[in-house]
Amino acid sequence: MVIGMMGFGTIGVGVYELMRDQKDLEMRYVLDIRDIGIPEATRRAEDLWEDPEVETVIEVMGGLHPAYEFVTAALRAGKNVVTANKYLVATYYDELLALAAEHGAAFRCTAAVGGGIGWLTALERVRRLEPVVALEGIMNGTTNYILANMTQGGLSFETALSEAQALGYAEADPSADIDGLDIMHKVLLSANVAFDVSLPAGEIPTFGIRNVTDDDVWNFKSRGLVCKMLGNARLEGEKVAVYVQPTLLPELSLTASVPANFNLITYETEYTGRMSFYGQGAGRYPTAANVVQDCLDLAGGVKSFYSGRARRVPVSNEIAHYRYYLRTCSAKKDAVQEEQWGDASVTRLMSVAEMKKLYDEILPEDPKVFAAAIG
Amino acid sequence: MVIGMMGFGTIGVGVYELMRDQKDLEMRYVLDIRDIGIPEATRRAEDLWEDPEVETVIEVMGGLHPAYEFVTAALRAGKNVVTANKYLVATYYDELLALAAEHGAAFRCTAAVGGGIGWLTALERVRRLEPVVALEGIMNGTTNYILANMTQGGLSFETALSEAQALGYAEADPSADIDGLDIMHKVLLSANVAFDVSLPAGEIPTFGIRNVTDDDVWNFKSRGLVCKMLGNARLEGEKVAVYVQPTLLPELSLTASVPANFNLITYETEYTGRMSFYGQGAGRYPTAANVVQDCLDLAGGVKSFYSGRARRVPVSNEIAHYRYYLRTCSAKKDAVQEEQWGDASVTRLMSVAEMKKLYDEILPEDPKVFAAAIG
Repeated sequence: MVIGMMGFGTIGVGVYELMRDQKDLEMRYVLDIRDIGIPEATRRAEDLWEDPEVETVIEVMGGLHPAYEFVTAALRAGKNVVTANKYLVATYYDELLALAAEHGAAFRCTAAVGGGIGWLTALERVRRLEPVVALEGIMNGTTNYILANMTQGGLSFETALSEAQALGYAEADPSADIDGLDIMHKVLLSANVAFDVSLPAGEIPTFGIRNVTDDDVWNFKSRGLVCKMLGNARLEGEKVAVYVQPTLLPELSLTASVPANFNLITYETEYTGRMSFYGQGAGRYPTAANVVQDCLDLAGGVKSFYSGRARRVPVSNEIAHYRYYLRTCSAKKDAVQEEQWGDASVTRLMSVAEMKKLYDEILPEDPKVFAAAIG
Repeated sequence: MVIGMMGFGTIGVGVYELMRDQKDLEMRYVLDIRDIGIPEATRRAEDLWEDPEVETVIEVMGGLHPAYEFVTAALRAGKNVVTANKYLVATYYDELLALAAEHGAAFRCTAAVGGGIGWLTALERVRRLEPVVALEGIMNGTTNYILANMTQGGLSFETALSEAQALGYAEADPSADIDGLDIMHKVLLSANVAFDVSLPAGEIPTFGIRNVTDDDVWNFKSRGLVCKMLGNARLEGEKVAVYVQPTLLPELSLTASVPANFNLITYETEYTGRMSFYGQGAGRYPTAANVVQDCLDLAGGVKSFYSGRARRVPVSNEIAHYRYYLRTCSAKKDAVQEEQWGDASVTRLMSVAEMKKLYDEILPEDPKVFAAAIG
């Protein structure tokens, strides 16, 4: 299978290296605006979709533009597209899937969720046999690294974040990680595939960890709890709950024990029960490996996306309930407080929708508010 | 795809139920010596391989005979075979694979390792891209249930075993579980597929948990350790180490936190690093689900076993090293003791081969000896 690749950054170089050993895959073009010094280099994007022998276009540039323009052009030319770009897929989900179907091309993005974990293909496999009813997990290595180091190393949030940045896990502007946007895109994609739906990105609430303090962590620890940042989605009848939130878990539980920058993602089905996948959620080679795996699947005859026709559904977070740890100086907490943990409140059982509303009301009053579900 | 199934016990009934929803799969025969009251029932095994329309034969009878005779007859007739019978596959590995290849049939046994976890297909997928260098894990729910209940519930071995039997996890004769034979078959199959080898079952050492006491567990607990029964295999150059042993792990580690009768199996590769799979390792529906998944793969065009030509290799446990917890009244421990934990010894670093030799020497002298690797 002849392939053209757009992007030669961290992931792109990994894909290029791994593909050299694959006799059924031929990398013909690598698009980059820089001088990248390889024989396949081109600065002309059209090369990738004008060459009739190119069957598959890989997009590992990242960002929305010009990735969107290039990917849609490739699909219109009937090329299969493989991408690791969750932001792109989550943003243009319906359009990309429709374009692929219309032009008889396959669209795959396994590396977009869980990096080295073949999560979307695992969902695709189990769905042949039984419906997925729920999914949840640690889908972002940076926030897990920060929280794990606060918990085990006793670091402050700022120090743990600086360490994550020094190791290259977190960006200079870490907000996509610590405010939960990265996880939001991943949980949206996962839920779309798991439930055959198309969820509106703008409606998915994300409670971040920007405001978590070492006092909070100490408060959890003294109660045998560990804070993990989780993406969640659940199907109930026709309704889908989907949200991103810090969650307090018993320290001896499986999810609580995920170290460093690893991911652990779980689905739940009627017959197989809970199945979890643990691995490197990011990084050059783990991510590149799943990009190449997608290409191998296409070369082996895979012709479509992971799931069927997507039904547009709203977010229904009134069906999911938790008690929340809520640390705020706002008096608005009083109406929902049921218990006190140190200086923080523990609320009565609330729906995620209700908590989101309260949180948004508190935030202007107390920009340091921190909320975590008690899982 | 037309299918005949041999066996209508726990797994067989599950397969029968799950297959009803699969429009591409037609169950034509179900072989059982009992009167099972379904229209597909037959008492004549030959029906399954004499009907030219049957493409695939499922074997879920268990045991070696007549499963072996029936499976080989089906393969000779060119039928694909799907089985959940690890004992059969581990025992006749070379012969079954050769027969399948010779008659152009596919041989699949995903449910044989890890029950509801698609472990062998996960190995098959990753091996397209990169070699597997090691694997390990909790591959037996019964022993995990017993050890978890001794650790968390403070139960004695006998009480924990009785509970496992009452819940239907452990057989009336539990030796295949507690002496490690079940895990030995699973780790052998996993290593064979992961490394493209054929290992001799008789040479794989299994240290069991028959002799573990609540005092031992207390000894571990007071040091922040948890005992788990693990299967292990590792490739180093041309050599393969493979063994089954109780292993002491830090209580906050991922493997230590696996509860009840769940499994957690891990492979390690150069590029993707560590990948773990957690789920129901046994039970009607999880196991049946992977039998049906195998059939779906065959209907979708899968034509071969998970790995290529198997190279016969010996077991080389002199390449794997641990310090061991060794509790025995035999004076033979003195030569290797480096430390003492309560009444038990902690040995110097020893190879698994060396420990196996020592253990076999101690056993006649002290039938209550217990050994666990410090992981």
